[in-house]
Amino acid sequence: MFEDISYDVQDRIALVMFNRPEVLNAARIRTHEELQAALDMADRDDGVRAVVVSGQGRAFCAGTDLTQGFNLPEGGNPASGEGVPPDIGGTTVLRLFDMRKPVAAAINGAAVGFGLTFTLAMDIRFAAETAKFALPFVRRGICAESCCSWFLPRLVGLQTAQDWMLSGRTFLAGEALARGLIYDITPPDRVLERALIWAGEIAGQTAPVSVALNRRLLWQMAGAAHPAEAHRFESRGLIACMSGPDAAEGVASFKERRDPQFTGGVRDMAFMDDWWPRRP
Amino acid sequence: MFEDISYDVQDRIALVMFNRPEVLNAARIRTHEELQAALDMADRDDGVRAVVVSGQGRAFCAGTDLTQGFNLPEGGNPASGEGVPPDIGGTTVLRLFDMRKPVAAAINGAAVGFGLTFTLAMDIRFAAETAKFALPFVRRGICAESCCSWFLPRLVGLQTAQDWMLSGRTFLAGEALARGLIYDITPPDRVLERALIWAGEIAGQTAPVSVALNRRLLWQMAGAAHPAEAHRFESRGLIACMSGPDAAEGVASFKERRDPQFTGGVRDMAFMDDWWPRRP
Amino acid sequence: MFEDISYDVQDRIALVMFNRPEVLNAARIRTHEELQAALDMADRDDGVRAVVVSGQGRAFCAGTDLTQGFNLPEGGNPASGEGVPPDIGGTTVLRLFDMRKPVAAAINGAAVGFGLTFTLAMDIRFAAETAKFALPFVRRGICAESCCSWFLPRLVGLQTAQDWMLSGRTFLAGEALARGLIYDITPPDRVLERALIWAGEIAGQTAPVSVALNRRLLWQMAGAAHPAEAHRFESRGLIACMSGPDAAEGVASFKERRDPQFTGGVRDMAFMDDWWPRRP
Repeated sequence: MFEDISYDVQDRIALVMFNRPEVLNAARIRTHEELQAALDMADRDDGVRAVVVSGQGRAFCAGTDLTQGFNLPEGGNPASGEGVPPDIGGTTVLRLFDMRKPVAAAINGAAVGFGLTFTLAMDIRFAAETAKFALPFVRRGICAESCCSWFLPRLVGLQTAQDWMLSGRTFLAGEALARGLIYDITPPDRVLERALIWAGEIAGQTAPVSVALNRRLLWQMAGAAHPAEAHRFESRGLIACMSGPDAAEGVASFKERRDPQFTGGVRDMAFMDDWWPRRP
Repeated sequence: MFEDISYDVQDRIALVMFNRPEVLNAARIRTHEELQAALDMADRDDGVRAVVVSGQGRAFCAGTDLTQGFNLPEGGNPASGEGVPPDIGGTTVLRLFDMRKPVAAAINGAAVGFGLTFTLAMDIRFAAETAKFALPFVRRGICAESCCSWFLPRLVGLQTAQDWMLSGRTFLAGEALARGLIYDITPPDRVLERALIWAGEIAGQTAPVSVALNRRLLWQMAGAAHPAEAHRFESRGLIACMSGPDAAEGVASFKERRDPQFTGGVRDMAFMDDWWPRRP
Repeated sequence: MFEDISYDVQDRIALVMFNRPEVLNAARIRTHEELQAALDMADRDDGVRAVVVSGQGRAFCAGTDLTQGFNLPEGGNPASGEGVPPDIGGTTVLRLFDMRKPVAAAINGAAVGFGLTFTLAMDIRFAAETAKFALPFVRRGICAESCCSWFLPRLVGLQTAQDWMLSGRTFLAGEALARGLIYDITPPDRVLERALIWAGEIAGQTAPVSVALNRRLLWQMAGAAHPAEAHRFESRGLIACMSGPDAAEGVASFKERRDPQFTGGVRDMAFMDDWWPRRP
């Protein structure tokens, strides 16, 4: 079914792997289509509680496949926006933004261009201590893509964001850790294991509806003008949760000092589509 | 007057203490009502220059009191928002957001759920090195509250915010310091003293009108779309300050190398209510 | 031509120096007018690829010149905003915000008040390890200026921003580094060299159009409500780049493992004025 990636579910975690190691997992249009389809599958499957993304071979993803030039849709008027085709990387990243399951990156090697910007809309990034990073757009004569101009300043602050973006320079895992891009670094062969442990803790301990709601609240409110907007949506979320089965189980298990058995599924979260409609 | 908290003013600092150590200062509806009343008192009293919040006993605040379940107002339609009661924690936090005095948290022990989210709208957080933290909403089947989905990403970045929120795990003071949640950690019995020193420096050295105006500008502009919005409000603030008594005294005391004697009071700041009306 | 500053172009870098060391480079109205004119010159000159700002003598800039009091335009109604003159520092900073060239600060000594807020809209800040910083507005009876209430929380987070702003205290280069304000610190006499190296790498390796576009995208999207806004503008930017000469050269030079020869100039970027009009 998939050619550029692989998709497997084990222990309630969907593992998505870039699967073209012969080209350092460079992304072409097909790769984006498959990534979007894999994220749809994971979101629809109540048996999946979290997603981990990694790469086969020595790279995570070397960026857009340039063997045939940029080979992307063209046309339209950039000044007015009329007829301009949407950046395909941005479409993939907005699909990530809307996920109802947490997504972790296990960056096993080079993450360059889209290989890095793709991970910015994930909830957490782990990297092998040998991983390399770059946003080389200014050295290729093009511009920021995959909505990274929105995500990057919110992850590492404006100063680091401008430095990496304006210089296009390569930086290593230690700097990525120190500047807040990466949550943790691991020995070279342990990064996938580390991400799976993080995902497994969520899969084992938490209510799916709560996770989906909280994930989305944080992403949406990161751009909101005023905390009163959070107040409005959190109030609605609390009522939604308390009228479902999980809040009572949450309190009961806490008082009885036992593990909770949550039964709510993210299919119960249709109400969220009224708050923040999915983009087409 | 107060039952769940205490309120005392000394050396121009209002000290608000959670005062139910027998239940680890867990917050019930009455607690929220008293917190809001105490913040109103501090804001109205020109003799108060800053507020410090801490907890009696070994906890700061263990979160919402669950002895009778969540015991919160219910009802309404979460999809449309119609009839949904406002989250009471969010109402308390929005009162903090509107304060004209700086507020510091002295986190003497466990700060869990609301016990942590309450502090996010304060200006600074000090913690005992033995303090513990958690946002366990996903483990109780509920969702983010007290506007924390707005505050948390702005304090610790989106990656840490998602990790703490989606895992619901407990974390300690050292991690809270390293990730930017806490400004400083102290020996276990010195955290209140540390917060009082911070508040005392402001009380002794600064103009009340300037403090109120700058505090509010930073909180409001943290959500503004463009620096031109800051330009507009700062221009008005400068004119307001320069037409009051404190700017001239500020320059004179600076030139004469003496301590300033500011006479403007925050009651002179009614103009700010025209900029950013207080919520009901 | 200039009196309060100097302006020189060497190796495609414009060097702007505060040039009133006898008053620690304190800024008066004339200084602002000259800074704005210098930034205009750098932006119009296709021979300039980046700007570095530093100070003559032992200070970077000691803030607003108070020898004749604040000596700023007054009048207008702060409550309604009617007739309020724009803060001149904010006008200078908004000019920085709109730049098509990267701007680096080489903070050689004291950076106080406007001397610090001026640098917040620059892309990167280097400081001598002996530099000192303060935002002393609350100790002068005035309020935040130069749009710093918008920039500061985005650079150092809300907690540090409130601490520095509400206390008005002096802090040193090590703290400025640790809290993310400064990118790097240098021996006292090497800060200008460090900034020139940073600017020189950009001048030598990157496409001017890409740099201008990416710089502006990051600044604009730092305040945007949703990543879909980045998607819209990045899509248009990509089309604009791919229809120019530099994207093809970027791919060709990458494949041929040679340095690129970019020919696009920022005069080709008039389309950006339709996206984000320059303020008058």
